[in-house]
Amino acid sequence: MLNFDFNLQIISHQKPLSLQSIMGINIGIPRGTRDFGPLESARRNFILKTIECQFHKYGFLPLQTPAMENLDTLIGKYGEEGDQLLFKILNSGLHEQKNKDVILEKFKLSLEKHLHASEITDKALRYDLTVPFARYVSMHRQELPMPFRRYQIQPVWRADRPQKGRYREFYQCDADIIGTPSLLSEWELIRLADDVFGALKIPAELRWNHRKLLQAIADFASCTDRFSEFTLCLDKWDKSGKEGVSEEMKKRNFQEKQIRDILSCIEQLNGFFASDFHNVPYFIPSSPSGDITKNEISFIYALYKNFPLKHIRLVPDFTLARGLNYYTGFIFEAKALQGDFQPSILGGGRYDDLTGIFGQPGLSGVGISFGLDRIYDVMENLQLFPEQLKTTRYAFCLGLNMGEQSIGYMFDFIHKLRESGVPAFQFPENKKISKQFEYADKCGIPYAAIAGEEEIRQQSIQLKNLNNKEQKNLPVDEALNILKHEYFQHGKN
Amino acid sequence: MLNFDFNLQIISHQKPLSLQSIMGINIGIPRGTRDFGPLESARRNFILKTIECQFHKYGFLPLQTPAMENLDTLIGKYGEEGDQLLFKILNSGLHEQKNKDVILEKFKLSLEKHLHASEITDKALRYDLTVPFARYVSMHRQELPMPFRRYQIQPVWRADRPQKGRYREFYQCDADIIGTPSLLSEWELIRLADDVFGALKIPAELRWNHRKLLQAIADFASCTDRFSEFTLCLDKWDKSGKEGVSEEMKKRNFQEKQIRDILSCIEQLNGFFASDFHNVPYFIPSSPSGDITKNEISFIYALYKNFPLKHIRLVPDFTLARGLNYYTGFIFEAKALQGDFQPSILGGGRYDDLTGIFGQPGLSGVGISFGLDRIYDVMENLQLFPEQLKTTRYAFCLGLNMGEQSIGYMFDFIHKLRESGVPAFQFPENKKISKQFEYADKCGIPYAAIAGEEEIRQQSIQLKNLNNKEQKNLPVDEALNILKHEYFQHGKN
Repeated sequence: MLNFDFNLQIISHQKPLSLQSIMGINIGIPRGTRDFGPLESARRNFILKTIECQFHKYGFLPLQTPAMENLDTLIGKYGEEGDQLLFKILNSGLHEQKNKDVILEKFKLSLEKHLHASEITDKALRYDLTVPFARYVSMHRQELPMPFRRYQIQPVWRADRPQKGRYREFYQCDADIIGTPSLLSEWELIRLADDVFGALKIPAELRWNHRKLLQAIADFASCTDRFSEFTLCLDKWDKSGKEGVSEEMKKRNFQEKQIRDILSCIEQLNGFFASDFHNVPYFIPSSPSGDITKNEISFIYALYKNFPLKHIRLVPDFTLARGLNYYTGFIFEAKALQGDFQPSILGGGRYDDLTGIFGQPGLSGVGISFGLDRIYDVMENLQLFPEQLKTTRYAFCLGLNMGEQSIGYMFDFIHKLRESGVPAFQFPENKKISKQFEYADKCGIPYAAIAGEEEIRQQSIQLKNLNNKEQKNLPVDEALNILKHEYFQHGKN
Repeated sequence: MLNFDFNLQIISHQKPLSLQSIMGINIGIPRGTRDFGPLESARRNFILKTIECQFHKYGFLPLQTPAMENLDTLIGKYGEEGDQLLFKILNSGLHEQKNKDVILEKFKLSLEKHLHASEITDKALRYDLTVPFARYVSMHRQELPMPFRRYQIQPVWRADRPQKGRYREFYQCDADIIGTPSLLSEWELIRLADDVFGALKIPAELRWNHRKLLQAIADFASCTDRFSEFTLCLDKWDKSGKEGVSEEMKKRNFQEKQIRDILSCIEQLNGFFASDFHNVPYFIPSSPSGDITKNEISFIYALYKNFPLKHIRLVPDFTLARGLNYYTGFIFEAKALQGDFQPSILGGGRYDDLTGIFGQPGLSGVGISFGLDRIYDVMENLQLFPEQLKTTRYAFCLGLNMGEQSIGYMFDFIHKLRESGVPAFQFPENKKISKQFEYADKCGIPYAAIAGEEEIRQQSIQLKNLNNKEQKNLPVDEALNILKHEYFQHGKN
């Protein structure tokens, strides 16, 4: 029954490391996914803890949702392209089903377009944290304090073409305030971004736009009814500039005049708005959407003037569109300002009715999402990780192994260190002492404790500082105290 | 293109919360998965941080692997049953493929048995953390310090029938030492279990057995060649007792005498071994496996005698088999000792050649895995969560909203609190003051700060203790100091 083949070792004996197929078994990981070894994991944890600490300061509490959601929950929320990027999970027990013909037929049909047939797959991995959040709020509205503030730090999965900064598994760190239209929430999230990037020392700018301003522009250019198509075209600006947007609009049969009106409006706004907002409101087309926008921008900028951000810049960018259709007010995006790799490291915005589709209308909210993986890439690129995260350190003291007679004595010492909170362990085998020092070095361990027959008789420990090679024979308690002191004064990560 | 239907709100207006289908959209989560709200998340984080802290003390460093592994990596590692419990992921872009007939044919074939056809699915969600660990070590052997100590805290997924204590998504917290046959590693993990359950205050016993002892019993009963089948039968003891094992063995055509020999051997061992190990070695059949076992048990018990565990009991249990075939030496399992729900909360053991299948033979290791979700269930059952985790608290101070004129003044106060590390936020809307107090109450917030025209003129804050209803008008700095003091002396979670 169990086909774990232990004999394989004989055949592939001492074969060098290879990602190639070994005896027909591929050793590797799925495309676009990554392993994180000790140093990378420690660095990722550092970023996560920094962000989490800021979330707590702002009164956000954690929420966790399952990795899998029902397809019904996800399909149709991210556009047609998004639907195709979902990782769908095969229903279990398919081979036990009796109606194989029906399943086969469904599969055939679904192959023609997408694989939505619930007989074959009815679950998928979550694509972001916003839709699961909306689903959660819809299910628990009665018991939640409204407005509800939650943060969520979990991986998401997208079957996108992998490239630098784009992974198939990546972590989002979301903070949302739902259940109030108040612009104080936008202001809170702007400050939160300032505090997070400040704590991580990332030089960044937070760009904003307003979907109702884009709506006003669409109205002005007489393409009100093609708003969502217009924002999709505008999304090209970042990569292919004004020409790219113009081309995309032509391709979609927008009229020449519409394209001209839209682009000139955006260019004028971009040119003047940043420098002196209060003198250029006439650039904003006068319309209901335009007027709302003016008031909302004034509110935020009044606070911004009185309480300047400490670390990041807040700048308008009227080419910012954000593909997701559920945004209805302010939208945000942040990028690092230095380095040769400047991907978007934060995104977000206001949504007026995200929970409506789940039967709970009337809950306006706003959220931002920090991208852990890109923040990591930026911090690596700009060498922003703190000193203690430049190397791996498994423990603060290695107890050397001098043979069976002294194992208990050394265990006792190591155990006392651990009880004081100092990470330590004993080398498991009685190998040559030089090998054990080599191991300590490879593990980044700064101290070694040594005890043979003589030390046991004296109730002492030879304590060696592996950096400066100093070694002292010390009473056990003194050795303990020195290590405790060094660890808590200088050595604690 | 985007079919996120905002009009749905009109149709389902104010429909009460329902898990039923709303307009054909099921609102719910996949069977066997769970959402964790703020309180549950905080409690889960408390358990994880406690375990992680112990892992660090013992010199384990973190490793993270992708949620998805190649099917090649997983298939055949968990037995036939395990293969069927894998959550397989549909290949993306299937609808774009040209050779639809081939895919259809493969799908048809795979329906007959399992869905292993790589044209349809070549990835699955990880089933445990041990096999991904072995895969990682095999790929990175050269660069890792050997013996390699890693911990890994991540969710795993199994398409098992959900029931109390068994979920389809659950977290494992693994610590492994690979690259040495030294029994000091077993001893380390026993101590680690003692420290973890001690820190969580869970009264538990750690049961052990030895796969080579079971081997010796199989030899003794002349069914050496059916060892793995024998362990599968033995696994039934926990649920259906001696009779269950006997029945299962009969069903599998073991001979009457074999069954009798095995069961009497185990019963004698169980009866006498625990009380006085050194007098009953004659119960262990004399054979190469038997002799190894005797030596190994002596080693561990010698340490155990000299350094008693502080919190948990270490007890032999010769009915313990552990289904996974890769175990070759000591095996472990822990259960809570009190309460009406006593699932296994830890499992583990020694494996002599887990990485052999990935082309890296000769790396013996031992690991244990704490089950977060069951530990949570046990702690809830025994009411072991600390006081501050009995309720949810979003922040330490709520700034009341007294209208647009005072928003900036209050923001400044809240901002200063946050800068001192005190979690706080301002209520986003200018609602009736009683509503705002109600909200603070629902959020578990102990203090409210109030500032209207009069306080702004005086540069003061009305600080209200929401527990005893005391309210004082204080200079801003004094209000800040009181909140800081209260938070860091008494209020910090």
